Amino acid sequence: MSKRRQEIIDRALKLFNEKGFHDVSIKQIADSLSISPGNLTYYFTKKTDLLKAIQHQLIQETSIDIMPSGYITLYHFEEIFKSYSQIQAKYHFYYNNLQYIFKTFPEITKSYRIITRKRFRDAKLLINYYIKTGRLNPENEKINYAYFIRTIWMISVFWKTYSLMTADTFRDSPSQLDILWSNAIPLMTEKGYHEYIEIIKFSVSEVIKS
Amino acid sequence: MSKRRQEIIDRALKLFNEKGFHDVSIKQIADSLSISPGNLTYYFTKKTDLLKAIQHQLIQETSIDIMPSGYITLYHFEEIFKSYSQIQAKYHFYYNNLQYIFKTFPEITKSYRIITRKRFRDAKLLINYYIKTGRLNPENEKINYAYFIRTIWMISVFWKTYSLMTADTFRDSPSQLDILWSNAIPLMTEKGYHEYIEIIKFSVSEVIKS
Repeated sequence: MSKRRQEIIDRALKLFNEKGFHDVSIKQIADSLSISPGNLTYYFTKKTDLLKAIQHQLIQETSIDIMPSGYITLYHFEEIFKSYSQIQAKYHFYYNNLQYIFKTFPEITKSYRIITRKRFRDAKLLINYYIKTGRLNPENEKINYAYFIRTIWMISVFWKTYSLMTADTFRDSPSQLDILWSNAIPLMTEKGYHEYIEIIKFSVSEVIKS
Repeated sequence: MSKRRQEIIDRALKLFNEKGFHDVSIKQIADSLSISPGNLTYYFTKKTDLLKAIQHQLIQETSIDIMPSGYITLYHFEEIFKSYSQIQAKYHFYYNNLQYIFKTFPEITKSYRIITRKRFRDAKLLINYYIKTGRLNPENEKINYAYFIRTIWMISVFWKTYSLMTADTFRDSPSQLDILWSNAIPLMTEKGYHEYIEIIKFSVSEVIKS
């Protein structure tokens, strides 16, 4: 990819995040880079082409394998959401316009669904690993991991909108990680639960604070 | 409230649902009612005044008490979501524009947060009832009902967007009720779980089908 093309994508992302996708024009992006609108449209004919390029980049960053190699603790569950939170912060205009984007651009919707299917499959692999290593209970009549994955996905993807809609509703609002863990705990074996307790008790930040 | 005022609200809701909030003008609503735009703006100066009136009506319909009187089975959990799904269908343009609405109208955000706080409190009352009557386990180190309520709220409010984003990702996509129940099951006592089994086995639609 040309350096200029990447510069335009980076600047568009910055401006969309600052002012909102709908309130930024091709001309404003060009002005901000001190290039002519004609120069910009040589790379991206329409604003939606920029949106596509940004989503392409977002999908690249999201599609990193959920499964690392070697031995994995339950802490990896938390790490996945921390890294996904970073992606959501980096592309927050996108997560603020989900309904608009998915209603308006069938192509974008299609590619997002493909990556979601992959993420659901990866999540199942991680769960199978946790079951085999004795931290999660096997699936049974009371536990359905396909439903669990969808719950976790919703909490993770809609967290920003949830916060916007309910912020300060109660003083002691739980964090996203609190709620994610609370969904996993009832599915854990005793071994898994003990590991979880160690994780929250002895996380680096907690030990340094105390 | 005057009859004309209610007619305008009803028509605006219909048009917003059909064409999307952003693509309907005050003039179109007036034309569709065969009145002059001046007549309409006598009741609603701006389109956002219409949005406020619609949200007011939505909140009235949502704020019906979660707790009925008398003896309540676990089936009431399902009934709440069925009636909320009907509200979401009736006001679907609103649920398709959550981020826009909450970012743009602080007044609307404020009143929505008040109703959400009430709903979270009502949900806690229902949970306490289910605990006292032996269907849900009491809160303990592994069960946090404040977090459970937030999870359930997210699944319920963001279901349409979730469906739009992931539709057909897998052939056997679970229903919203499937996922809601799957979150409640690990918190149920044996008594509660038996009641749940009866509910899904002997629901009217299942008995008639078989």
